[in-house]
Amino acid sequence: MGIVVQKYGGSSVADAAGIKRVAQRIVATRKLGHDVVVVVSAMGDTTDDLIDLANEVSPLPPARELDMLLTAGERISMAVLAMAIQSLGHEARSFTGSQAGVITDAEHGRAKIIDVTPGRIRAAIDEGAIAIVAGFQGVSQTTKDITTLGRGGSDTTAVALAVALKADVCEIYSDVDGIFTADPRIEPRARKVPRISYEETLEMAAQGAKILHLRCVEYARRYDMPIHVRSSFSDKEGTWVVKAEDVRQEDSSMEAAIITGVAHDRSQAKITVVGVPDKPGEAAALFRAVADAQINIDMIVQNVSAAATGLTDISFTLPRGEGQTAMTALDRIKEAVGFDSLQYDDSVGKVSIVGAGMSSAPGISARFFEALSEAGVNIEMISTSEIRVSVVVAETQVQDAVNAAHAAFDLGSDEIEAVVYGGTGR
Amino acid sequence: MGIVVQKYGGSSVADAAGIKRVAQRIVATRKLGHDVVVVVSAMGDTTDDLIDLANEVSPLPPARELDMLLTAGERISMAVLAMAIQSLGHEARSFTGSQAGVITDAEHGRAKIIDVTPGRIRAAIDEGAIAIVAGFQGVSQTTKDITTLGRGGSDTTAVALAVALKADVCEIYSDVDGIFTADPRIEPRARKVPRISYEETLEMAAQGAKILHLRCVEYARRYDMPIHVRSSFSDKEGTWVVKAEDVRQEDSSMEAAIITGVAHDRSQAKITVVGVPDKPGEAAALFRAVADAQINIDMIVQNVSAAATGLTDISFTLPRGEGQTAMTALDRIKEAVGFDSLQYDDSVGKVSIVGAGMSSAPGISARFFEALSEAGVNIEMISTSEIRVSVVVAETQVQDAVNAAHAAFDLGSDEIEAVVYGGTGR
Repeated sequence: MGIVVQKYGGSSVADAAGIKRVAQRIVATRKLGHDVVVVVSAMGDTTDDLIDLANEVSPLPPARELDMLLTAGERISMAVLAMAIQSLGHEARSFTGSQAGVITDAEHGRAKIIDVTPGRIRAAIDEGAIAIVAGFQGVSQTTKDITTLGRGGSDTTAVALAVALKADVCEIYSDVDGIFTADPRIEPRARKVPRISYEETLEMAAQGAKILHLRCVEYARRYDMPIHVRSSFSDKEGTWVVKAEDVRQEDSSMEAAIITGVAHDRSQAKITVVGVPDKPGEAAALFRAVADAQINIDMIVQNVSAAATGLTDISFTLPRGEGQTAMTALDRIKEAVGFDSLQYDDSVGKVSIVGAGMSSAPGISARFFEALSEAGVNIEMISTSEIRVSVVVAETQVQDAVNAAHAAFDLGSDEIEAVVYGGTGR
Repeated sequence: MGIVVQKYGGSSVADAAGIKRVAQRIVATRKLGHDVVVVVSAMGDTTDDLIDLANEVSPLPPARELDMLLTAGERISMAVLAMAIQSLGHEARSFTGSQAGVITDAEHGRAKIIDVTPGRIRAAIDEGAIAIVAGFQGVSQTTKDITTLGRGGSDTTAVALAVALKADVCEIYSDVDGIFTADPRIEPRARKVPRISYEETLEMAAQGAKILHLRCVEYARRYDMPIHVRSSFSDKEGTWVVKAEDVRQEDSSMEAAIITGVAHDRSQAKITVVGVPDKPGEAAALFRAVADAQINIDMIVQNVSAAATGLTDISFTLPRGEGQTAMTALDRIKEAVGFDSLQYDDSVGKVSIVGAGMSSAPGISARFFEALSEAGVNIEMISTSEIRVSVVVAETQVQDAVNAAHAAFDLGSDEIEAVVYGGTGR
């Protein structure tokens, strides 16, 4: 049997009872004959508690020291998990990111993995031990300082180790049963997807579905590492994230679904710049100002200019947390660009349909927009990609929009599956 | 100016306020022009909390994983302390024991330092930074696993780093003002000793005075590193632990004190083996049995054998926590050795007078025993060394014995110094 890499998030190891439960699951996998490598996040709220402590002594904790501090969280969970496994009679050894050979650049707080040299992990599993690795952390190749990988870091650690160890699969455990056709909290008929392509998963994640972090899916896609997303609270099969060919192959016997799922995102805001002179370079000046403020914008819509005035309106969406900064940056260039005013709206939401079958099926956008119209949902902005159509709507209409899209593309199951749906850890 | 190594125990960094206070003290030392290297213990009860967590998942936590777990404590305190110093405008960098070059053997939980290679610490201070080092921990030379040094580990880390860096002094901070002529909690006239030799400090510590751990004093003595024991809660000069010549030199103008201090110890028990056949090899068999049970015995007294019976009684003291094990081990060889019975007494205490001047001054023991007699204290056992006389008395008479000895050798000050007296951290 081959190597299985399993990643458990903070909610799965929130307390001693959770750690014991996870330990039993790991031992069960070991007993099937697999070599098991486990990546673990910090227990429950540990990371937040450590950040609070840092803020008590420093208004702006230095990044190097914050990384040193936060990595204590995984150190605790991995050691305790190794103890719990050993008390079940199986050899287990914990390793820090550095010991596991997770080599990164020196960007504290958002380091990128540049190499994985898991010699000690391989030695441990060759000796029959279960290896427990701290997620979210590594060591800088240049400074030898401890680094953290930022959001989604533990998922990325797991996939990177799985690739380096040539594992059969990377299992990502959370408190969710898998990837669903929509968020079950707002769409009771949401159905678990058995298989989904890396590309669709990336689009779903980018459009707000709280499944897997983009980085980890991109890493898995690049090296073609299958990810099995499943719940640590049940034994159910979860969702397999694989390459598109493998999804098609599996689905060949039945008619392939055109749409895989509906994602929604309530974390964005919309800024409209009113009365922009419709001359070359004006839009560029606006977006340069926003980019210089380190803000990631998402969708952009420019109205057709009114011939009489020679003025146009430009709207774009961005993360709500960055709204204030963007408004300040734009206000600073108001006179230079010569626009009339700024409007800020944080009561918007984005709803997207995602599906690899979309590119070969005409009329998808039309069916989506008709469904929204019939549900009385007003579309404020539209953007599309090869395998996705997104709309911005009023936040109060997000749920209606998701339900309408889900029904229009027959995504629902006949019975309502009982699931817990939460955010992914780090 | 040279290098100053400062060690702060867990009670000095129990919370964010404590860490800020310590940060200010460190910065003040830096402003005097010294290069500063700080060794820090885990915050307050962190270590106990982590041990509790380990016990929740494992009845007997494996030593390697326990070390991995416990070292998270110093990781937290050192990172937060570095942050607090940086927020005061001074560069500070934290280092794990491994990063600081603390190389140990592979004995988890009680590793010995076998080398210190502080290249990264020297680089940090050469660049003008304050280096913060995790106490109590190192890395095994052979297995590359993280180790802990056991009790007194942080003090030992500090002295070892001071030696490796050729520091001017190793300052050990706690919540006590220094080393006293007796425990001020039971001897209100106890006086802080300005200077004391390594040898006297070792005897005081071995006889129960909760000052410094034996290991750290032995290390300092071997490499002649001056230790300055002082309080992190005051700016008072503390006690300098130095070589005997330096104590004498300093005290040459006044009449040297014969006795430096009175130590007491309430942690011991006494076992008496009654009716041992007075033949060669019987005592050896008894103590071999106790030694095989890994028990450290302290004082031994053998009565003169009664000629009529050819039987003798042998008494010895040992740590109370090991009483049960020793009694079981002895009971197992009762028939083989042929003794009558075992008596166990854990209501004993040990009181010792310590002083380098003792060896050249006759009549010290006599004066000590007379003082005890006048105070109505009954002596159960006696042992002596070059610079120490110890007696075992009933636990209820420990305080009377300390007070009597303190007065008999004129150790008291005229005024009562206000001090806090607590245990040393790890």
